[in-house]
Amino acid sequence: MTHVALLLSPLLVLGAFMTDAQAAPRSPRAVLVIHGGAGTIDPSKITPELEKQYHAALTRALEAGYTVLNSGGTSLDAVQAAVIVMEDDPLFNAGRGAVYTSDGHNEMDASIMDGSNRMAGAVASVRGIKNPIKAARAVMEKSSHVMLVGEGAIQFAREQGLELADSAYFGTQRRWEELQRTREEEKKKGEYGSLSFPHTHLGTVGAIAIDTKGNLAAATSTGGLTNKRWGRVGDSSIIGAGTYADNASCAVSCTGRGELFIRSAAAYEVSALMRYKNMDVDAAAKHVIHDDIVKLGGEGTGGLVALDREGRFAMEFNTRGMYRGYIGKDGVPHTFLYKDP
Amino acid sequence: MTHVALLLSPLLVLGAFMTDAQAAPRSPRAVLVIHGGAGTIDPSKITPELEKQYHAALTRALEAGYTVLNSGGTSLDAVQAAVIVMEDDPLFNAGRGAVYTSDGHNEMDASIMDGSNRMAGAVASVRGIKNPIKAARAVMEKSSHVMLVGEGAIQFAREQGLELADSAYFGTQRRWEELQRTREEEKKKGEYGSLSFPHTHLGTVGAIAIDTKGNLAAATSTGGLTNKRWGRVGDSSIIGAGTYADNASCAVSCTGRGELFIRSAAAYEVSALMRYKNMDVDAAAKHVIHDDIVKLGGEGTGGLVALDREGRFAMEFNTRGMYRGYIGKDGVPHTFLYKDP
Repeated sequence: MTHVALLLSPLLVLGAFMTDAQAAPRSPRAVLVIHGGAGTIDPSKITPELEKQYHAALTRALEAGYTVLNSGGTSLDAVQAAVIVMEDDPLFNAGRGAVYTSDGHNEMDASIMDGSNRMAGAVASVRGIKNPIKAARAVMEKSSHVMLVGEGAIQFAREQGLELADSAYFGTQRRWEELQRTREEEKKKGEYGSLSFPHTHLGTVGAIAIDTKGNLAAATSTGGLTNKRWGRVGDSSIIGAGTYADNASCAVSCTGRGELFIRSAAAYEVSALMRYKNMDVDAAAKHVIHDDIVKLGGEGTGGLVALDREGRFAMEFNTRGMYRGYIGKDGVPHTFLYKDP
Repeated sequence: MTHVALLLSPLLVLGAFMTDAQAAPRSPRAVLVIHGGAGTIDPSKITPELEKQYHAALTRALEAGYTVLNSGGTSLDAVQAAVIVMEDDPLFNAGRGAVYTSDGHNEMDASIMDGSNRMAGAVASVRGIKNPIKAARAVMEKSSHVMLVGEGAIQFAREQGLELADSAYFGTQRRWEELQRTREEEKKKGEYGSLSFPHTHLGTVGAIAIDTKGNLAAATSTGGLTNKRWGRVGDSSIIGAGTYADNASCAVSCTGRGELFIRSAAAYEVSALMRYKNMDVDAAAKHVIHDDIVKLGGEGTGGLVALDREGRFAMEFNTRGMYRGYIGKDGVPHTFLYKDP
């Protein structure tokens, strides 16, 4: 964790975001942090060309969110803008590029939360919605509910005039081949669900931000788990598990084996540790990823990004890598793939 | 809250559950607490006959769970047994007696959690499963997942050989009339979701227990919200929101306006307050119901039951009443409807 520790050392954080207050007075604290999934990102198996593509995609997402923040927009709009870029990019397991279910569909989950009022919205197990994060946002703002699932959620998205897309849009050759490989592996190993973790999980996306008014927000979107069955829902659409935001503490977006993040209420736990145990965001994120999740058998299964109301943040994972990045006051995107950059 | 405070005064708790250790040595700490929903239970509108029916139904649920505990069974089996009795009873909004959705179906949510290992299972937005709590248990024990929703969850239940039932089984005249009244009221008041709370929410069921081995468990089951749309899912199937159990702190089951319990991670919050703020179960339950939920605008919208590893418990609500009861070492069921018995 040298890298993350380095990023979070007080000096560097101050240097990056909190000094030189006279410059860029409109966004003294605006910060955006994103992830594109945690897992076995093996440098020996990713070509330099693919590495470049990931850095470029993360950079585009950071810039999209930062454009919102820098023009005085809300953290809510910023996290949505960043997530949309990643949903639209087939590199990530969300929106276009979502993995295939056992029966060959793309079923997606997403959630969003506004730290200023703790309003939240989520959709789960939806098909054919181009940007599930927009549907989650609509649930928050246009319904009296927090969570809609399945056909009902799709009908709601349609009524809200959200853009739909057919299976050809979501279908990518890479994800189809992953499904075939997973099916083959499962045939050899036996039981469904017996496969080792990172193989089938990589690519959930998320974003957290603080805007110039000091409001926090968080968003998460995923295609879930390759070869998943039975309408399985992970943590990405669960407020408190995969996503949480509260101006009183922090904004959090998680990625990894969703079942463990649900059972440990991972996103909310970061907030609880900060409020009740006076941990800073770094210590709270480390506790959840290297203690809480590991106690449930989750070593090597996930990560999270978390951001406090001072603009300090953590990008913590117990896997070999996590696609991630941040952008602060200076407007320069910083992106990373592996543990040590 | 005089009544609840009274129940939880140390003397009474000691008197009821912790003294006289030589009697009933097989279950020195076994306790089961249940609820059948919180809301406007107006004594002037409930006939004495109906009151009797509720007391009798709660008593049957307590006895079913206590039979398990008293024969050395697990808290997990006990909470399931108690919830099944209430799911089977059309008095409660769960299983048979589930309310109707906007399009005239009965869509149910349920979850269960084992405090000894924090394993959990949940189903949401399912139709035609006779006992949704059994489906939640099967998800926990027979799949690698925590949460299944919609058609996929129903297929899973079928594969597990769980008993199905047709719409005639779930349909009750009383709930159908509630749907018609809600539709009428909505027509007058305008927008969907604009109705005052308790009218449409009452009747979620839940159970929490500690067994003779000191293991905690929690279970919750509901038909959700009368006239609900779009595959709306409340807190009952959300681990951390409507249900949580952890031997390190407590077991919790919530009832009320689910959206608020999701946004405040209510069940997990009780656990966090106990572990990190050293609150006892009574103070933690009070904080969540009278502070956290109220801050989100939830005065008069719900309640919860919570039980610690010493067998102390709280039955807290900010509504006029909550169907509830407990049974402890002496095997005598105690049931309540209103704030002051």
